[in-house]
Amino acid sequence: MSSHFGTLFRIATFGESHCKAVGVVIDGCPPGLHLNEADIQRQLDRRRPGQSKLTTDRQEGDLVTILSGTENGITLGSPIALKVDNLDQRPGDYGDMTSIPRPSHADYTYLAKYGIKASSGGGRSSARETIGTVASGAVAAKLLREKFGVEIIAWVSGVGPYEAGPVDQATITSAQVDQNDLRCPDPAVAEQMRSLVVSLKEAGNSTGGVVSCIIRGVPAGLGEPVYEKLEAKLAQAMLAIPATKGFEIGSGFAGAKMTGSEHNDPFVMKDGHLGTATNHSGGIQGGISNGEIVHFRVAFKPPATISQPQQTVNYKGDSITLEAKGRHDPCVVPRAVPIVEAMAALVIIDMVMRQEARRAFCS
Amino acid sequence: MSSHFGTLFRIATFGESHCKAVGVVIDGCPPGLHLNEADIQRQLDRRRPGQSKLTTDRQEGDLVTILSGTENGITLGSPIALKVDNLDQRPGDYGDMTSIPRPSHADYTYLAKYGIKASSGGGRSSARETIGTVASGAVAAKLLREKFGVEIIAWVSGVGPYEAGPVDQATITSAQVDQNDLRCPDPAVAEQMRSLVVSLKEAGNSTGGVVSCIIRGVPAGLGEPVYEKLEAKLAQAMLAIPATKGFEIGSGFAGAKMTGSEHNDPFVMKDGHLGTATNHSGGIQGGISNGEIVHFRVAFKPPATISQPQQTVNYKGDSITLEAKGRHDPCVVPRAVPIVEAMAALVIIDMVMRQEARRAFCS
Amino acid sequence: MSSHFGTLFRIATFGESHCKAVGVVIDGCPPGLHLNEADIQRQLDRRRPGQSKLTTDRQEGDLVTILSGTENGITLGSPIALKVDNLDQRPGDYGDMTSIPRPSHADYTYLAKYGIKASSGGGRSSARETIGTVASGAVAAKLLREKFGVEIIAWVSGVGPYEAGPVDQATITSAQVDQNDLRCPDPAVAEQMRSLVVSLKEAGNSTGGVVSCIIRGVPAGLGEPVYEKLEAKLAQAMLAIPATKGFEIGSGFAGAKMTGSEHNDPFVMKDGHLGTATNHSGGIQGGISNGEIVHFRVAFKPPATISQPQQTVNYKGDSITLEAKGRHDPCVVPRAVPIVEAMAALVIIDMVMRQEARRAFCS
Amino acid sequence: MSSHFGTLFRIATFGESHCKAVGVVIDGCPPGLHLNEADIQRQLDRRRPGQSKLTTDRQEGDLVTILSGTENGITLGSPIALKVDNLDQRPGDYGDMTSIPRPSHADYTYLAKYGIKASSGGGRSSARETIGTVASGAVAAKLLREKFGVEIIAWVSGVGPYEAGPVDQATITSAQVDQNDLRCPDPAVAEQMRSLVVSLKEAGNSTGGVVSCIIRGVPAGLGEPVYEKLEAKLAQAMLAIPATKGFEIGSGFAGAKMTGSEHNDPFVMKDGHLGTATNHSGGIQGGISNGEIVHFRVAFKPPATISQPQQTVNYKGDSITLEAKGRHDPCVVPRAVPIVEAMAALVIIDMVMRQEARRAFCS
Repeated sequence: MSSHFGTLFRIATFGESHCKAVGVVIDGCPPGLHLNEADIQRQLDRRRPGQSKLTTDRQEGDLVTILSGTENGITLGSPIALKVDNLDQRPGDYGDMTSIPRPSHADYTYLAKYGIKASSGGGRSSARETIGTVASGAVAAKLLREKFGVEIIAWVSGVGPYEAGPVDQATITSAQVDQNDLRCPDPAVAEQMRSLVVSLKEAGNSTGGVVSCIIRGVPAGLGEPVYEKLEAKLAQAMLAIPATKGFEIGSGFAGAKMTGSEHNDPFVMKDGHLGTATNHSGGIQGGISNGEIVHFRVAFKPPATISQPQQTVNYKGDSITLEAKGRHDPCVVPRAVPIVEAMAALVIIDMVMRQEARRAFCS
Repeated sequence: MSSHFGTLFRIATFGESHCKAVGVVIDGCPPGLHLNEADIQRQLDRRRPGQSKLTTDRQEGDLVTILSGTENGITLGSPIALKVDNLDQRPGDYGDMTSIPRPSHADYTYLAKYGIKASSGGGRSSARETIGTVASGAVAAKLLREKFGVEIIAWVSGVGPYEAGPVDQATITSAQVDQNDLRCPDPAVAEQMRSLVVSLKEAGNSTGGVVSCIIRGVPAGLGEPVYEKLEAKLAQAMLAIPATKGFEIGSGFAGAKMTGSEHNDPFVMKDGHLGTATNHSGGIQGGISNGEIVHFRVAFKPPATISQPQQTVNYKGDSITLEAKGRHDPCVVPRAVPIVEAMAALVIIDMVMRQEARRAFCS
Repeated sequence: MSSHFGTLFRIATFGESHCKAVGVVIDGCPPGLHLNEADIQRQLDRRRPGQSKLTTDRQEGDLVTILSGTENGITLGSPIALKVDNLDQRPGDYGDMTSIPRPSHADYTYLAKYGIKASSGGGRSSARETIGTVASGAVAAKLLREKFGVEIIAWVSGVGPYEAGPVDQATITSAQVDQNDLRCPDPAVAEQMRSLVVSLKEAGNSTGGVVSCIIRGVPAGLGEPVYEKLEAKLAQAMLAIPATKGFEIGSGFAGAKMTGSEHNDPFVMKDGHLGTATNHSGGIQGGISNGEIVHFRVAFKPPATISQPQQTVNYKGDSITLEAKGRHDPCVVPRAVPIVEAMAALVIIDMVMRQEARRAFCS
Repeated sequence: MSSHFGTLFRIATFGESHCKAVGVVIDGCPPGLHLNEADIQRQLDRRRPGQSKLTTDRQEGDLVTILSGTENGITLGSPIALKVDNLDQRPGDYGDMTSIPRPSHADYTYLAKYGIKASSGGGRSSARETIGTVASGAVAAKLLREKFGVEIIAWVSGVGPYEAGPVDQATITSAQVDQNDLRCPDPAVAEQMRSLVVSLKEAGNSTGGVVSCIIRGVPAGLGEPVYEKLEAKLAQAMLAIPATKGFEIGSGFAGAKMTGSEHNDPFVMKDGHLGTATNHSGGIQGGISNGEIVHFRVAFKPPATISQPQQTVNYKGDSITLEAKGRHDPCVVPRAVPIVEAMAALVIIDMVMRQEARRAFCS
């Protein structure tokens, strides 16, 4: 369904910008995991607005509460409900929206779909909805790290025309990513990106960007042929994040320009088991992980909410000039980093559990 | 599940290269549709191997039989089972595979996942599995065309370094696409692509490519926030096709380099209703269709099966030189065109039905 | 999944006895429904403990809060999160449970399943979990009543050896059911039941019972062959309620003793459309509603928690005499009435929406 | 969806009486199981019509073919498609049905649902559809038997007024059940049942009956709270079988008349682990198996198709006397035995796999 994701580790999220709370119910989390609010809060803090000058000025503490599913800091196996209250709502900021659909925002499409004009326009298309994603993804990531040694690290690799240099996928850490508020591990390029974002913010404009992500320690054998190939679920997961426009696994669109003899990843021995010498496949072959690092990229469009005047029409069709007043991010990618990590964790944990269900019969 | 796709119009596919038959069961197809084998066969013919010199020499008639779900050429509302027999199996062609995992093929990952070495290696990762996709997609496409006026047209827009010029999305037809066996509506570029493919085939090599697709007539309001946004399901659907490495909706990765004032699609009046002046959004905003043409691109890697010698290791880890003998396609994109169309149709029909379920309550 | 129910109107419940809150997320509720807390509270009040001398002394206000999904008292189409805080937890009451599995309770099986001894034993098997069911069922029931004229009425038809006389299915009302705290519309039998329940409560014992239910105004055509026949989903729904042991649709087990000529329901004309003269079918034929009143019965076992001494063994296997101290209901059926109604509403609303999805194609 | 069952071991069935074939696709069957047609055929032979004088005279060989998913008699982990051709169709037998809905048959409800009059009336409500169930259930049963030592045995325990005496649940075998063509392990009562059935067949009438079933060797811990409790899924599974009217787990409706002190199952030590002295719970507590024998009963109504004249109305509402000519069973329960076993196996295998997915995290 619309707000559900996963087959065995399944989440159901709720909440929009102007209701009492946002959150998520996690069904299927295994029992016995040590879990408290702090495990979840860190990623919410990386996602929340107002964390730096590069993001929206909207301030929300975004403190998470565990409502159910744990006792004495241990998961019971029952559903885990997580809630974050909405504190800073200010629906007044969106005053014109009842008569004017904002260009490239979801006001018009939500009205077409639901026949309702909510005060937040496309309420569930708001970045605020991603709190449930990030909170549940933090639980999934903890499980993966502690039980399987899987690590997921995303970073900003592009903002407007600027592209970060290559990273060492085998060693990059979250600390390196968070060295600057752009979450770009290439400090020199990060500085260029920062200048661009600050100047666009001042100009009432915005810019797109790219988030890259690696997943280390993925066991071989994950992914469910044919419609739930590992890359297919990752693609769905990433394109479900607001403002995304593209997804590449491994070689991506560049792979479309290569020949087979260039693109194929020959097998070699690594530490006593089979690995590949190159990794154009992105750690996945035939929809199933091969034990190499899974790596992918996600394109984000520039935020639609800009304060520059825009020539458009209102719902009646009258030409008007729109000058939006709502607070907004000039560039979403720094805040998107924990969201990409969360969605990746939700995909992998579900695939791990599905493969484990099979294992009992294979021995 | 692995072989299922869709919520209300749901398919379950079956079959690998070396079994008796491949096919699909369609559950949820509405009653009253005129349907016979010919409606399905056309797309299978566009998909089948051996249709031109650009494809594998493996010859299969791929004739479809409707086993259930229709009477007197009309759908009953009950499951529609479609079957295509496997005629040309030749498992002998894959002789070395029991000891050598082919680079960038799914032999190794299927073994890791299932613990079984099938004679076809990664059986379900075979292009042959896509017969079920194409057959069920043809049913979905017919429903969409006849009941909602939706048209889906894909074409080859890139092969190796060659890119087709822009097409008129409002008027392009399937006949234009099929003018040449590359399925590229730009004849001059198609000729360059053809030369490349022929020369690579002779050299025992292969190339990647790009398929573009448009969907015309999509009603506004389709897509289910948040994890089943329209672009998220399209992304999953496309990355579930064998050999795909990337997906772009609307502006795609180019959008990541734009500013908001460039990227936003202002509203204008079109024939008495709201439309957009540009379409960087690709017909989708906030995960929901806006009534404009949906357009997207899919990257395909070069086929992994090449006959050039490859330096790799066998399952024991011994270095060997692999010279594959199986028949193969030097470039999959011409045959991928109907597969992309099928997956698109399966996504749209399901979203249409889900939106219709809501409609009864909105009036 | 375990805590999910429904395909298009889908709920995900959470919470156990000793956590902060219990509740539910409803996904897929159509937009435009007038909904506030009072619409939900009435059924929660009928379910809550401590409402009469016939129920447990545990007192909980069970006040519901709508966290999301509505604005100005109207549903938006987005997920509706409902929450009830846990106030009266007293985990101390269950002191012995860490060493002794209570007979016919879920302590032992939850430990076998999850490997965890929660302070509430089988936390999710608690009647408290049914709050989410009842709350979401109230929303479904309102939709059904307002948009389709469907009415759902359950009542107590048996307690121990006592059976209520027949009711007029066409006219029975909720007010008649609530005339006494047993929720049995046969006042004379209700008095006998009451005496039995009171005497068993004093004796530290408990009794089973039967809840009957009718659904009026079900449109013909609901139910999804074959595994989601209308009676199949009702059976699942009812056996998902704690303490249930049996389900009968229409003639039920009595039907197994009849001949076809007795059991068949001949067609007759009713108000210008086809109906049936008798209704042994219970309003369903071949898994699909026929427009007659749907009627069914649900058996509930006596509550397992009794304060009489019981001879059993502890986890180590030592024979012991258990004298339970927790508060409990001597008979659950009066409080089960709104739960049965809720589950019935959840089944019907989902089937209505699934049938509506088909309708667009049938005209 | 309508024709799907299961979460990890998932089936999709297809086919009605008058199409080319009926069958099933099994998705999620683990790899490595030895499987050939004979493993499946035995249960189909117990289900097929014409096997004795007690059943319909319609003769079908019902030979199954494995279309995919195995190689050299071993399952690959990929979908297993099973097909049985329809040989003996005789649509002419149902001649009057286009104008007259047969009482208590599904002609009317299928028309209401789908708006189509198929030549078989309610095609998917036909007993013939159960072939897919039985075939896939045979695969599930083999897996359960070989990998987990689970045994499933059903038998006829009631026909009309006759009830079989108690069986020894710990030792009853399939061979004992098949000693007579009624599949009733109580020979004396079986003889009475047989006389009744034969006389009703001659009289053009039919009778209902009851099938009982036990499942031995179920590991403790199966069942998914709350809506997929083990008994809830069994109830759905059984009520999905054509002609069923009731389901009882353990004490069933009799349990509703007992007190808690009578009904509770005290724990005792059995072979070094905890068991229960009695089994009113039917092997399930709080929705989760406790390691005891799971036992339940299923009520079947008398077949609706009788050849005695029936007073009814046609679609126009004109009173008519219907004299059905189609071949039919005077009593379905002997043929229902393998269907009940199949549905039970499908429920248990899915629950086993879901529990195994959790196990990896619990150690």
